[in-house]
Amino acid sequence: MDRIPELTTLCYIERDGCYLMMHRVKKENDINKDKYIGVGGHFLYGESPDECLKREAAEETGLTLVSYRARGIVTFCYGEDTVEYMHLYTAEIAPDAEPGECDEGTLEWIDKDRVAELPIWEGDKIFFRLLQEERDWFSLKLVYDLTDELTQVQLDGEIFFE
Amino acid sequence: MDRIPELTTLCYIERDGCYLMMHRVKKENDINKDKYIGVGGHFLYGESPDECLKREAAEETGLTLVSYRARGIVTFCYGEDTVEYMHLYTAEIAPDAEPGECDEGTLEWIDKDRVAELPIWEGDKIFFRLLQEERDWFSLKLVYDLTDELTQVQLDGEIFFE
Repeated sequence: MDRIPELTTLCYIERDGCYLMMHRVKKENDINKDKYIGVGGHFLYGESPDECLKREAAEETGLTLVSYRARGIVTFCYGEDTVEYMHLYTAEIAPDAEPGECDEGTLEWIDKDRVAELPIWEGDKIFFRLLQEERDWFSLKLVYDLTDELTQVQLDGEIFFE
Repeated sequence: MDRIPELTTLCYIERDGCYLMMHRVKKENDINKDKYIGVGGHFLYGESPDECLKREAAEETGLTLVSYRARGIVTFCYGEDTVEYMHLYTAEIAPDAEPGECDEGTLEWIDKDRVAELPIWEGDKIFFRLLQEERDWFSLKLVYDLTDELTQVQLDGEIFFE
């Protein structure tokens, strides 16, 4: 296998009906440029998903997660050459903790009901709905073409649309 | 990252209090040689865990899974150079279906209470216990040294022993 899949975590920190979202405005050549996503990033070699989650959350927010919950895995295919397995989490930080500055974007608390109105990936709206529905651990596959159009969605192995 | 982690599924098909186990006696140079494990194998590029699961189960047993359940992920570290993310499932086949021949080993129905007595990896006993306890989706990290000794166990991000 000469094409190497990416392994990542993505975490939505929750508080008072909001998610902590990162507005990706700071990096050029960012596939997520100007979009809102959670905190997270790539596995270091040998890390478990949990270890990656805790390290990335600490690096990007300056905070320690006090609890977290694995919510699912998202298999992203983007064109022919990008495949990413993203381990999705929700988490909590201490009640009085405030995230610091992050060099990848600005961190903002966003009301959960407003998330779908933000510039986010089309497929992200699907997993936000699954999170809101308190669905058990799920496996979502999102296939995008090179124009960023979502061309196939599978949920727990069943084709949802294509 | 020049060292590439492996991505696999492992599935225990259940029936009448038994697991369908593969006794790995057919392949030379098999890291699992003579051990009992479930059915499964490596992701093809772009497959979701579900797609890999269903394909591997069909290839190794000749059967279609009628239902399955994601039970967890196991991060294996073996020495310095082998890291594997194994997506663990239990599943069911049709009540009258019988698995066919497999060229990787012999398939046998093993009573769940007897699994721990078989030649299996030490860490596998831990996830069999988690499966029996009906634990929600879990993340287990198993670190082995090059003598096959289990040197660290993490469960849901907490060190269990080392």
